[in-house]
Formats: sequence, structure tokens, C-alpha cells
Amino acid sequence: MIFEMTERECRDLLGRTSLGRLACSQDNQPYVIPIYFAFDFDYAYSVSTLGQKIEWMRANPKVCVEVDEIADRSDWRSVVVLGTYQELTEPQYADERSHARSLLEKRSLWWQNALGERQLKSETELIQTTFFRIHVDSMTGLRATAESR
Amino acid sequence: MIFEMTERECRDLLGRTSLGRLACSQDNQPYVIPIYFAFDFDYAYSVSTLGQKIEWMRANPKVCVEVDEIADRSDWRSVVVLGTYQELTEPQYADERSHARSLLEKRSLWWQNALGERQLKSETELIQTTFFRIHVDSMTGLRATAESR
Repeated sequence: MIFEMTERECRDLLGRTSLGRLACSQDNQPYVIPIYFAFDFDYAYSVSTLGQKIEWMRANPKVCVEVDEIADRSDWRSVVVLGTYQELTEPQYADERSHARSLLEKRSLWWQNALGERQLKSETELIQTTFFRIHVDSMTGLRATAESR
Repeated sequence: MIFEMTERECRDLLGRTSLGRLACSQDNQPYVIPIYFAFDFDYAYSVSTLGQKIEWMRANPKVCVEVDEIADRSDWRSVVVLGTYQELTEPQYADERSHARSLLEKRSLWWQNALGERQLKSETELIQTTFFRIHVDSMTGLRATAESR
């Protein structure tokens, strides 16, 4: 049986998940990559090195984040968020940036994100990171369970 | 250490993976959902019930498929495919459609796909399915290992 998830169930899944997939789009060509994030209220916070994804999201802030827990074909749930990219580099976002850093450090996600990127730097070179957050504009979720069949 | 994957390594990962994430886009709003697929030569074959994803891909066939194997932050690989949606419903695609069915049945993926969709039907109602394939236009992959550090 497949059920629509309530908003509460969607938020619970976002809250306990740290790995999702982030899709952005340029000239209607979508692009999707794994992302580590920390969900807090209406935002998914993350950090990244500069690269195609950041450039695309700067040009077009409409994004989509998908998270799921898939055990097997009869036991899974998936939440899809339509959202808006907001970069936290400018001085006026200092508070949000340190909030993002704190959330991500708490989950030990900072280092993964900085590494999990296309721009490969030598170990001695400074890795420039960009903090950003995705505002949740809408979310939908589906869950399947075998129990009620 | 992070390495670019060779095309062979990318194809190997696509070949042994059946769960990926498919992104499509409409008016530059990306949308990403889990997808079960079977990779064969330059195509990822799948099946779906009608729904937002099919409608969007009919309107804009530019898509992106991402597959990954993520063990932890220092042991992961991810392949991103930019591709083109091709629906296999018309009579001239009968061969491709039965090829898709055969590939998907071999991997027992048919039923998951038909169920894993937004359009919820009653058990007595016929579930209309749409076979399609994604042509691989380009692919890139990254892998991380702790060993070479």
C-alpha cells in the first residue's frame, strides 16, 4: 500500500536524514548530485566547494531536494522538496552562515561536503567553501508498507 | 583521495546498480525522484505509471540520472549521466519495449516501478504503465577512497 505522507512525516524524514540528492537546472538541462545537508525548520543547510552546481544555482535558484529510505520494493518512503537556493556568503548572512556551520559540524557533515565535489585541490591548497541553504517552498512524500496489504 | 572515474568504471557502476535518481525539468524548475532502471549499452531502461515525471519528460526530454555507492565519507563513488528521454509507447518501438520489459523482469524491477509512483490506483483498477529509456549523452564519475591518503 502506498500512502501520501503528512507534512509532519515529511519533516521527520528530512530531520533524520543527512544524505539527499540535489537537482538544479540550466537551460532546462537538469543536473543531480548527492548532497549532505542539515535540515532546520524551513531550510536545508549545506556547504560546498565552488563548482558547476553552485554556478548553476546562482544563475537559477529553483532547485529540488529528494531524500528517501528504501528498504525494498514494499517498504520505502521518499520526500521531494521544491525549494529556492540562497547563498550565505555575503556579510549580512554571517549569522546564518555560523548557524549552518554549527548544524553541519554537529552532524560531522562539513568535511564530507567540502570533499565531495568536483573541484579537486591539492592537499596544501586552501579549499574555498560556500555555505548555502535551500528554502523549502513545498514538499510531498510517499511511503509504502507491506503491512496493510 | 578523489579520482575521476574512467568511462569503463562509470559503465560498470551503472551496470551493477538498479536504483538511481532521475531529474527532469520544466520552466527551469528541476524535479528529482528515485528510479529503478536497467542499464544496457547506451540506454537506461525503465517503466513508470503516468504522472508528473512522464509529462515533464515528454515536454522536455533533457534529463539527468545519478547513481552512487556511498559507504562513508571517504569511500564513495557517484556517476552523473546527462541524457535524453525517449518514450517506448509507439508501435515502432515494440522491439525496444519488449527488450526493456525483459531487462526489467530479469532484475525484478517491473513491479517496483509500477508501484513507486504518484498515481495511486485501486487494486482492481488497471495500472497503465509507460516504458521509456534514457539515452546516455555524456557521463562523469567521481570516486573517493581512503586507501591512498
